[in-house]
Amino acid sequence: MHSLERPRPDVVPLSPLQYEEIVRRELATDLGTAGDITTAALVPRGLRASAHIVSRRDGRVCGLSASLYAFQALGKVDCRLLQQDGDDVTPGVVLAKLEGPAHVLLSAERTALNVLGHLSGVATATRNLVRDVVKAGPARVVCTRKTTPGLRSLEKYAVRVGGAWNHRFGLFDAVLVKDNHRVMVGGVRAAVVQARAARGHLVRVEVEVDTLEQLEEALAAGADVVLLDNMSPSTLRQAVAIVRGRVPTEASGGITPETIADVAATGVDFISVGWITHSAPALDVGLDFV
Amino acid sequence: MHSLERPRPDVVPLSPLQYEEIVRRELATDLGTAGDITTAALVPRGLRASAHIVSRRDGRVCGLSASLYAFQALGKVDCRLLQQDGDDVTPGVVLAKLEGPAHVLLSAERTALNVLGHLSGVATATRNLVRDVVKAGPARVVCTRKTTPGLRSLEKYAVRVGGAWNHRFGLFDAVLVKDNHRVMVGGVRAAVVQARAARGHLVRVEVEVDTLEQLEEALAAGADVVLLDNMSPSTLRQAVAIVRGRVPTEASGGITPETIADVAATGVDFISVGWITHSAPALDVGLDFV
Amino acid sequence: MHSLERPRPDVVPLSPLQYEEIVRRELATDLGTAGDITTAALVPRGLRASAHIVSRRDGRVCGLSASLYAFQALGKVDCRLLQQDGDDVTPGVVLAKLEGPAHVLLSAERTALNVLGHLSGVATATRNLVRDVVKAGPARVVCTRKTTPGLRSLEKYAVRVGGAWNHRFGLFDAVLVKDNHRVMVGGVRAAVVQARAARGHLVRVEVEVDTLEQLEEALAAGADVVLLDNMSPSTLRQAVAIVRGRVPTEASGGITPETIADVAATGVDFISVGWITHSAPALDVGLDFV
Amino acid sequence: MHSLERPRPDVVPLSPLQYEEIVRRELATDLGTAGDITTAALVPRGLRASAHIVSRRDGRVCGLSASLYAFQALGKVDCRLLQQDGDDVTPGVVLAKLEGPAHVLLSAERTALNVLGHLSGVATATRNLVRDVVKAGPARVVCTRKTTPGLRSLEKYAVRVGGAWNHRFGLFDAVLVKDNHRVMVGGVRAAVVQARAARGHLVRVEVEVDTLEQLEEALAAGADVVLLDNMSPSTLRQAVAIVRGRVPTEASGGITPETIADVAATGVDFISVGWITHSAPALDVGLDFV
Amino acid sequence: MHSLERPRPDVVPLSPLQYEEIVRRELATDLGTAGDITTAALVPRGLRASAHIVSRRDGRVCGLSASLYAFQALGKVDCRLLQQDGDDVTPGVVLAKLEGPAHVLLSAERTALNVLGHLSGVATATRNLVRDVVKAGPARVVCTRKTTPGLRSLEKYAVRVGGAWNHRFGLFDAVLVKDNHRVMVGGVRAAVVQARAARGHLVRVEVEVDTLEQLEEALAAGADVVLLDNMSPSTLRQAVAIVRGRVPTEASGGITPETIADVAATGVDFISVGWITHSAPALDVGLDFV
Amino acid sequence: MHSLERPRPDVVPLSPLQYEEIVRRELATDLGTAGDITTAALVPRGLRASAHIVSRRDGRVCGLSASLYAFQALGKVDCRLLQQDGDDVTPGVVLAKLEGPAHVLLSAERTALNVLGHLSGVATATRNLVRDVVKAGPARVVCTRKTTPGLRSLEKYAVRVGGAWNHRFGLFDAVLVKDNHRVMVGGVRAAVVQARAARGHLVRVEVEVDTLEQLEEALAAGADVVLLDNMSPSTLRQAVAIVRGRVPTEASGGITPETIADVAATGVDFISVGWITHSAPALDVGLDFV
Repeated sequence: MHSLERPRPDVVPLSPLQYEEIVRRELATDLGTAGDITTAALVPRGLRASAHIVSRRDGRVCGLSASLYAFQALGKVDCRLLQQDGDDVTPGVVLAKLEGPAHVLLSAERTALNVLGHLSGVATATRNLVRDVVKAGPARVVCTRKTTPGLRSLEKYAVRVGGAWNHRFGLFDAVLVKDNHRVMVGGVRAAVVQARAARGHLVRVEVEVDTLEQLEEALAAGADVVLLDNMSPSTLRQAVAIVRGRVPTEASGGITPETIADVAATGVDFISVGWITHSAPALDVGLDFV
Repeated sequence: MHSLERPRPDVVPLSPLQYEEIVRRELATDLGTAGDITTAALVPRGLRASAHIVSRRDGRVCGLSASLYAFQALGKVDCRLLQQDGDDVTPGVVLAKLEGPAHVLLSAERTALNVLGHLSGVATATRNLVRDVVKAGPARVVCTRKTTPGLRSLEKYAVRVGGAWNHRFGLFDAVLVKDNHRVMVGGVRAAVVQARAARGHLVRVEVEVDTLEQLEEALAAGADVVLLDNMSPSTLRQAVAIVRGRVPTEASGGITPETIADVAATGVDFISVGWITHSAPALDVGLDFV
Repeated sequence: MHSLERPRPDVVPLSPLQYEEIVRRELATDLGTAGDITTAALVPRGLRASAHIVSRRDGRVCGLSASLYAFQALGKVDCRLLQQDGDDVTPGVVLAKLEGPAHVLLSAERTALNVLGHLSGVATATRNLVRDVVKAGPARVVCTRKTTPGLRSLEKYAVRVGGAWNHRFGLFDAVLVKDNHRVMVGGVRAAVVQARAARGHLVRVEVEVDTLEQLEEALAAGADVVLLDNMSPSTLRQAVAIVRGRVPTEASGGITPETIADVAATGVDFISVGWITHSAPALDVGLDFV
Repeated sequence: MHSLERPRPDVVPLSPLQYEEIVRRELATDLGTAGDITTAALVPRGLRASAHIVSRRDGRVCGLSASLYAFQALGKVDCRLLQQDGDDVTPGVVLAKLEGPAHVLLSAERTALNVLGHLSGVATATRNLVRDVVKAGPARVVCTRKTTPGLRSLEKYAVRVGGAWNHRFGLFDAVLVKDNHRVMVGGVRAAVVQARAARGHLVRVEVEVDTLEQLEEALAAGADVVLLDNMSPSTLRQAVAIVRGRVPTEASGGITPETIADVAATGVDFISVGWITHSAPALDVGLDFV
Repeated sequence: MHSLERPRPDVVPLSPLQYEEIVRRELATDLGTAGDITTAALVPRGLRASAHIVSRRDGRVCGLSASLYAFQALGKVDCRLLQQDGDDVTPGVVLAKLEGPAHVLLSAERTALNVLGHLSGVATATRNLVRDVVKAGPARVVCTRKTTPGLRSLEKYAVRVGGAWNHRFGLFDAVLVKDNHRVMVGGVRAAVVQARAARGHLVRVEVEVDTLEQLEEALAAGADVVLLDNMSPSTLRQAVAIVRGRVPTEASGGITPETIADVAATGVDFISVGWITHSAPALDVGLDFV
Repeated sequence: MHSLERPRPDVVPLSPLQYEEIVRRELATDLGTAGDITTAALVPRGLRASAHIVSRRDGRVCGLSASLYAFQALGKVDCRLLQQDGDDVTPGVVLAKLEGPAHVLLSAERTALNVLGHLSGVATATRNLVRDVVKAGPARVVCTRKTTPGLRSLEKYAVRVGGAWNHRFGLFDAVLVKDNHRVMVGGVRAAVVQARAARGHLVRVEVEVDTLEQLEEALAAGADVVLLDNMSPSTLRQAVAIVRGRVPTEASGGITPETIADVAATGVDFISVGWITHSAPALDVGLDFV
């Protein structure tokens, strides 16, 4: 067990700047130009109601503030949080209690739940994966740029809430020399030298390698980080031995929940996984009127 | 086998109005203010390249035009389609061939694949589910409003490409009387009457019922469609018998890939399923330079 | 007189989501980059003022909250409503009392009045037309998609405030088979069958017919609603007799305030009129400083 | 008859920057997230069609390029103009011939016609009014800031196309000292002095006066233009005599099509009228498939 | 010394409508999708802090409300103003005291200072220039349309705060006949006549002249204002003598801080200078935590 | 002389995604709702014209493509580039030749020149500074986050075109531990450890130090880069000796064109300077019709 002494990613709460536009656009999509015609026809305007946001499955909560903003954007709703982002919940646990105009609770319900279910799904999938890795080795799980269109900033947050770390946020915050770049520029050494020359002193240069020979080249060229792509556990183990802690090592490519423990056991520092962002099933959450 | 004679949802291609803003925003997210610093540092500006978009798994393709727009938004890229939205593919199948500036192919790659992988994932999950249903009964599969924030219009399209139909696009295009509405307005009959009075003659009124008693009430009240919520297959069968084709019947609630064939066998007209939009894993697609 | 027992459209208040952007854009248009240069030059900054929004004509008020938002977007203005959307007013009636910084009252005045005058104009024209119809028959007046660019959602609301109902909000919320569609698809029956096959079970299919023969075909094809286009009162009467209440009937085409009572007297269920949205004169409203 | 020697407002064509966003937003409103479901279900994708945009009434055409942009935003449509903005048409006159994908013609039709009908309505109302004025005196008709929310720039253009001139485009392009300003600043003289001191040398100062005494004050204070508000024709005549051509005179307030000739006969230089923008009925235009 | 009796431009405070979007966009640029990662990693979430905004140089303050909005957009920060826009400050003077969450103060700091430093830089450069002019003659300094992209409205305000006036805000608020226009239209007289005919009665017509002959023509043609371009002080003096106060005179072209006093001494009414907006160095301002 | 062997920053051309919105917004600001009223009144619509963009001063060109986009956004203008971004020019040098509709050339002129003058100003100031540094030592000049609101991405590009490198693009792409962070977290070591724990393996950690003692602490704590703030040349020299090349050294704070050579001579690796972005005077460029 490595979990006690290991570092934790920061889980600083989302800023409203990160989610307000997304939630408002989603509300506008759901309401359209005609609005919630069922509620308009049936619910008396002055009626107030209370409701609970409830988890229907095991999982880790993520995105509560963004989710509740859906209600607040449509009216004055009193929201009391009973859980926080990062808390682990079981079926039936109440995440928040709401009180406000009945028509607001009904009209914002689906938008709120879609946001909460999606982000909690990412956090939950991450958490589950991290649990397996923690038992097997010291590696940190990191996400990738394989995120859902429109939601990168929020999914990166959900990954941290799930206990993993973020790889690059985009093409802008680190150099990653892949196969194609290497070929186009004429070799690893040229790539690293050229990247350092062209870009600022605060930019790290990671080099993707497919073989141990390429690994040696990348180390010799002065890569800051090496990405060990699609290697078997035994090759990964050799790679870790070659690197000897001089630079961080990252394993990636074809790693599944079934194989991740084996990868973690090789001693690599980081394991990057795309499916926690692009393929995590939503967490089932609901709104119960009381 | 019911598939031969059954209707097909329309799969009219996406309009650029539906995806251009989404793709451009995603490109901006990936490029940030600094741009693709790896490509900027390493790839000679005049260099041209060719690449194939390739499927790495079995699945149904969806979102090709939206995906390719990512390249076109960054430069002049020649795109030749070898597959169309709705085609079923196997690992290694080339979906499109691209030729253009190397830096454009590299900088737009992730955005393009994220869009294509997500929509193809929804279409594939839908297709797989529809295949099971088709063998079991005449029911049409329909999606819900449980979609990924920001992507409703595109996911609704992917569902049609997958062979299913769309339920409501939002709160605006049909009345759906749920439990909470019924309670607030004082009964099913009042709800239906009031909805008809308040809203236009082109709006259908669907009523959600949990029991056969409620079903009788809904029919008596003149519901256009009845939503049979969380009923067991045997209850569904009774419900279908009660309705006797007077109005369409829709089953929903807790239906999984494991149970959907049993539900289809009850004779209901429609089965609504949320997870084909909110929890479908992305289809693995890649870009191979040639 | 049919008015007592007849249903009322819902007049649920506008959501700020529906008007805030429109009003802010209009304020920005009126202020430009230089702002209200008259007020800037002349009005002492700390000066406070009171003013009344007053009707200068007979009419029905509509859009008060959207109108008052113009003041609130520029400063803290205390607004007291003396009338509500849907109230009928005469010249001189005070609709709202305002108190706040003089420069805000002056700078937002025109934007506020333009919004209020336009929407009240639509509501008033609708109300006047509905009054005539109510005396002549049971028909409901409905509006069309012939709305002012940029204002559809607000004008649809004003129509309901005026006592009429909404037809489609756009091309998305019902199928309407017109002449051209019928020709392209090869007949009414094919059109209805194909529309039902392609689209969801919550979508109604209305068929436009020009003759009684076409009406018979549309009924036989299973249209949900029939639109009787450009028929004389006597033909409409025959059409109503043919339909015998099986589906709703809607009259449209060339109906003027002069002829609408005759149309209503034929017994059709709905009469759709474009000019209440595209050609209603604005209601004259003003701001009087006190 | 004064028309031959009199100046003409410029009718420089609209820039796409002025209408593209408005038309695209209106298309998005009409299509919603589901799109044109009738056309999607019924119209074969490859089908091409031809259609004419036709006037159904007498009027002056305005907004053709903005209108046709609706088609071009949805697909490749060949548009041939047979009339130009500013042309006078009679019922049945073909304004433009279109050829392109049938689904594009059908889906953009309503947006295109709403834009064209609205702007042509403003141009037509203006033209009709100008015709009456031209017979009565040398005055130029000018519009006001009483425009339809969201359409000021386009309506100001339509006014010029109709043969009238524009007053201020907003609060930013000239100083207009009204009653309330005068009271707040302490008299006409103070107002004019202060406005000149505070604002640039390219800004004109117009002063609204209700009486001949105020007119004398405004002239003495150095107003660039005087606005004669709510004066009877005989008082206007006296005012014109007092001014003796030293500054332009503008009549405004309660001027109707019935009274405008009398006002024009008083010899004022400008007559401002709000209803040509806020209350002009739309011109009836249609799309006929051929 | 002319300063006592001379008029002052209005310095009505900025409206939030003028800066909120600019500041929010700048915050979004600085935070990106990952946010302030230093603060997220290091600053305890509940920690509160106090800080002073301090001037580090001599200058005139401008843009305080826009600057402080950066903090308020990220959280609840208490801001106490010790100086106002238009105040002259020396190194070490505290402009505002802030108290709020430490992470908000740190994350908004750079955006706030960039806004404040830029606008104060424009105001300071203007003030310094105006001081020199005031000693030399009665001329008003005016700015031009040579502003920094994206900041015209704010820079025009900073110019007024600096004690100068605004020339045109854009191409829309006055006619300025330059060389190229004159050539294209065929002479000054034609240009003035045509401009008056085409445009409204509230638009001034300024004519740029390079020689005294052109000046005579412009006066004869009825120009409202003459722009004396690139003339030597002695020629300017002649021009002023020719004009004899009939219209305002404006000197422009190649006027530097070194030559402006000589220009002012010629007796021209206005001197327009571009570099106070496009080339003013930022005022050095800082945030000191206390 | 160090210039021959030293690296060059990449000067990959701007992507249209980086400037189109900025230029279009600036055009909209300049045109307003009324448009270019001078050109509308005076320039015959069919008239074509040719013009040259010319430098009026010595400088380095930057932003040509963004600048020319202003013309292209308003019409079809043929643009032939005679110089490229990064070229050094002298007064009178023609940068580009334009041919197109006269009204487009006139209406887009100011927007184009404002963009070009601003970015060329930044590039020129940077170039001049780099020239001085190159003679004195091996240091690279880097810019800061002290950029003009709204223009960070473009100014960062102009800095590279000027021959310098970019520091952070925002708060998101590297950790920079400043005084305040250090105090809040309790020391340098804690700050570095915590930053590494919280954030991804591709993020560099720079530590700001004011004294040589703090420098030793930062090195011991494992800082990736040290920022030597406000140190005298002699202290900088000692700092460089202490670091001995283990990590990059960056000098910052109060460095002026007068003192930068002395700083460069100390042997630091990087010198960061704010005024090349926030205070660079615009390069004087003009449009000459031919």
